[in-house]
Amino acid sequence: MNDLHDLAARIRYVLVRTSHPGNIGSAARAIRTMGFQRLELVTPVRFPDREASALAAGADDVLAEAGVHAELVDGLAGCNLALGLSARRRGVTLPELSPREAAAQALAAAARGEQVALVFGNERSGLENEELARCHAMVRIPSVDDFSSLNLSQAVQVMAYELRVAMLDELPAPLPPVPAELPADAAQMEKFYEHLAQTLDDIEFHKGRTPTTIMLRLRKLFQRAQMDERELRVLHGILADAQRMAALAKGTSD
Amino acid sequence: MNDLHDLAARIRYVLVRTSHPGNIGSAARAIRTMGFQRLELVTPVRFPDREASALAAGADDVLAEAGVHAELVDGLAGCNLALGLSARRRGVTLPELSPREAAAQALAAAARGEQVALVFGNERSGLENEELARCHAMVRIPSVDDFSSLNLSQAVQVMAYELRVAMLDELPAPLPPVPAELPADAAQMEKFYEHLAQTLDDIEFHKGRTPTTIMLRLRKLFQRAQMDERELRVLHGILADAQRMAALAKGTSD
Repeated sequence: MNDLHDLAARIRYVLVRTSHPGNIGSAARAIRTMGFQRLELVTPVRFPDREASALAAGADDVLAEAGVHAELVDGLAGCNLALGLSARRRGVTLPELSPREAAAQALAAAARGEQVALVFGNERSGLENEELARCHAMVRIPSVDDFSSLNLSQAVQVMAYELRVAMLDELPAPLPPVPAELPADAAQMEKFYEHLAQTLDDIEFHKGRTPTTIMLRLRKLFQRAQMDERELRVLHGILADAQRMAALAKGTSD
Repeated sequence: MNDLHDLAARIRYVLVRTSHPGNIGSAARAIRTMGFQRLELVTPVRFPDREASALAAGADDVLAEAGVHAELVDGLAGCNLALGLSARRRGVTLPELSPREAAAQALAAAARGEQVALVFGNERSGLENEELARCHAMVRIPSVDDFSSLNLSQAVQVMAYELRVAMLDELPAPLPPVPAELPADAAQMEKFYEHLAQTLDDIEFHKGRTPTTIMLRLRKLFQRAQMDERELRVLHGILADAQRMAALAKGTSD
């Protein structure tokens, strides 16, 4: 049986490249008021910091337990579902969710025992395309077109509030079906993308193409598919055989 | 017919005895992002103030037009419905609404042409009983019991967000966006699966595996991804290069 605390513990808030330590403190307070605890910081400009502590206004436990990471993939470690907040509609093919839809999906995943991340970018620039490419969907808070940028901690508050309301509305949750295979986590997906990129090199796919664009496109495709571990093993096997053929081809053509 | 702008213009945010000018600025920004304009300040400790302007982050119009009043009753002038935010359940006999219920009632009133106020108390002490007595209902944001106090501007953001969502939900839905690329149709997907199966043969992937099971598994994976035509072209390109390598490998090893 999932209680509120169990569900909340599976949902983390990931702040990427935050410029102002005050926003980290305000975000800690925001998630704490809504019953959440887990904050992950990816290359914050300053942390720990007096201003962060001051604005946490007592949510010191959240700051004390916050992870600090050099890479987004580390902040997403173990995550099965990552939802990236973005004010802009970009040329990305990620599905776009409202905060309410995102809360419903996040809660459903957490109820199945999955780990979920809400990912928030830098105050000015938001999430970069490569960061969004690590997410399964994009969340857009419905701000007005001519003044669309919420303060970072306000965006965190809106999402934490929607998640809290969804959890209170849903409980008690029915027991979810047990999936046959675990969904792949962020680190497994990274390993797969590395293998894929290496294979594309080996089979000389990149001639005349820009590898970064192609890999971004492929990441989006495979993120959408939300693969499980068995599927990943099959794909690794295919890549390995393609690499073997490439090695044979080159060993003889040299 | 009410449009978004008309409705928003009938809803004001009233901040009572605000201690920190920064919170006034943050509140101005919060309501502006959600399409609101009208801020009324009742005996703010400091206003106008540099910090308020800094945190408004461009919502200067909201601050410039904000009314400043000596009494709450003046801030509520012309109002037909006043809803007071309160973290605490007091011994008052006001009905208690969730933010979502409050947004629905506020919107219904605004749609009838009424003037509506959302009333927010002092950062530390909230609304006094005499202030709540001027409200028609109390709104409680569902925070956790052991850490119940949202920052003032965060509470403003949550209410403004709920009101914005309620207004957008009332309007006829916009036309769905035209996707940049067409989703692949069934025939295109079949062609892709044929190419994939042939490639698996060519790179000798099937040794010891049952091709039918593997192909079923891969079909499920790629069906879930709902690929577009451009993505299919990329995958065809990768398969073709893997096939080329396999042909080279075999042409020389025979």
